Amino acid sequence: MTAAAAGRSLAVGVDLGGTQVRTALMRADGELLARAAERSDLAGGPRAVVEQIRRLVDAVTQGVAPEHLSGVGVSSPGPLDNVTGVVLSISTMPGWIDIPLVAWLNEALQRPVVLENDGVSAAIGEWRFGAGRGLSDFVYVTVSTGIGGGVIAGGQVLRGRRSMAAHIGHMTTQPQGETCTCGNQGCWEAQASGTTLGQRARRLAPTRPDSLLARIGPGLNGAHVSDAARAGDALALELMAQEAEELGIGIVNLLHIFSPQAVVIGGGVSTGFDLLKAGIAAQVARRALPPFRDVPVVPAALGPNAGLVGAASLVLPS
Amino acid sequence: MTAAAAGRSLAVGVDLGGTQVRTALMRADGELLARAAERSDLAGGPRAVVEQIRRLVDAVTQGVAPEHLSGVGVSSPGPLDNVTGVVLSISTMPGWIDIPLVAWLNEALQRPVVLENDGVSAAIGEWRFGAGRGLSDFVYVTVSTGIGGGVIAGGQVLRGRRSMAAHIGHMTTQPQGETCTCGNQGCWEAQASGTTLGQRARRLAPTRPDSLLARIGPGLNGAHVSDAARAGDALALELMAQEAEELGIGIVNLLHIFSPQAVVIGGGVSTGFDLLKAGIAAQVARRALPPFRDVPVVPAALGPNAGLVGAASLVLPS
Repeated sequence: MTAAAAGRSLAVGVDLGGTQVRTALMRADGELLARAAERSDLAGGPRAVVEQIRRLVDAVTQGVAPEHLSGVGVSSPGPLDNVTGVVLSISTMPGWIDIPLVAWLNEALQRPVVLENDGVSAAIGEWRFGAGRGLSDFVYVTVSTGIGGGVIAGGQVLRGRRSMAAHIGHMTTQPQGETCTCGNQGCWEAQASGTTLGQRARRLAPTRPDSLLARIGPGLNGAHVSDAARAGDALALELMAQEAEELGIGIVNLLHIFSPQAVVIGGGVSTGFDLLKAGIAAQVARRALPPFRDVPVVPAALGPNAGLVGAASLVLPS
Repeated sequence: MTAAAAGRSLAVGVDLGGTQVRTALMRADGELLARAAERSDLAGGPRAVVEQIRRLVDAVTQGVAPEHLSGVGVSSPGPLDNVTGVVLSISTMPGWIDIPLVAWLNEALQRPVVLENDGVSAAIGEWRFGAGRGLSDFVYVTVSTGIGGGVIAGGQVLRGRRSMAAHIGHMTTQPQGETCTCGNQGCWEAQASGTTLGQRARRLAPTRPDSLLARIGPGLNGAHVSDAARAGDALALELMAQEAEELGIGIVNLLHIFSPQAVVIGGGVSTGFDLLKAGIAAQVARRALPPFRDVPVVPAALGPNAGLVGAASLVLPS
């Protein structure tokens, strides 16, 4: 760390998503000092979102002397090229094709900007300040609309060709299973995402009129299943058992492939981790080779802030 | 490289297996200058095998001036601890439990000795001198009795906790599939190893009396299937198509997980790679996200010598 860098002990994280743009000012110890968020301006397109980011970064850095700020780290859905700083496409955001986001933000913010894939950002956040702290080998899995993640292997971020490694949600875990949004059958995310959990609930609820889930209607989603399971609803408990089984199969694969020191589970579905834990452990006991069975499978520590924290930490001296 | 190391341009590789112990003298450019092999002395136990290795190393280094020899690299079935040099167990070799192989060989050979897992050794062999030359990210898969392999990620060997990464044969690819030797259902190796190919053939051959495979009898194995398929036998072609499909599912998973620059297929089954190639490509086309579909899936270049070459290269200055 240079003397100049040592003074730059604050960083801004930006979490760009199809629903919200969120920013935070972070201290070098991971503490978030200020936050701001807006609903993503999808209609306005990339230029409007860059303007949103400028506004939100200004808001969280108000009163901060420029010499204390190391830069801005941005977590974005991919695929993206983190070397050239170009977002190749974002399926949930119209018009986001080949956007030179880092160049645009450099110009708008007049600060150093670093871009990273959202799964990798969250993995880095958990690595630096969360459930993966101090580990050299761990896998971060986020289970929500889809399944994504990031991998730390041998103390390094796993990147692969075109920085496309860790598309773990698209490993096939049930070759004759559910059709995935990608067109394949039986991708892990088609079997075990929060979206799938909600779909299964909507399919079964009408057949089980006694279930709490039968009263919710077309808005029934994964979070409702988790809540109803906590209240002891039989259908919801069955659905959570199936969710744990499908999650467990993919986790067992990651154990054998990476031999991690821990598997960290984040994303919306992980708020029901206490309800899934035993079912995941049962799959590990059934399917993993003995030396892999003691690897901790734990919930993420940073919740929805993992990506924000990870992005900010990218521009801090390590 | 020090001046002293520069002169040590020869290395010995040892490939320890349940059938044979093989050694070779290798030049720094990967050329094998001398070879020797014996049937593994399973009855004699670890001490007898160490004596075999001593004899075989002496044979291939006869006439070599000690100052030209950099050391001895040993490829062994695992699990093993490559830091302490201890073989934890070898399921196919009785009495091989917690054997301090590196210490014993140091004493017997009076030379530096390095120990490495056989899948990783073969991956390193293909990386340095074979189909993975010049790549920073690739996956080596060996398909024979079981399925094993090794991974190079970001220019480093993937090791993980206790050096147990890359147990790729035990990822579950068909959760309701064949029972594996490990007890799990549907491990990739239970679905797609050479052993499984032979078992399927023995199960089906009696029901297809017109097939070439029906004439072979109880010794029918995977190699017979490959040969019969080459001769146009219908049953053998069906079995190879199924083999390609099962292999392809696992390969698709490795593409999404590692984003490698190539997948290299070795082991006995890869001698039929030309017969499997189209079927593997069909699974990739069907199941992989578009940006992963152009990754080359290629046969290994070093054949049965990959482990020997990789082990020898461990003790050469890189």
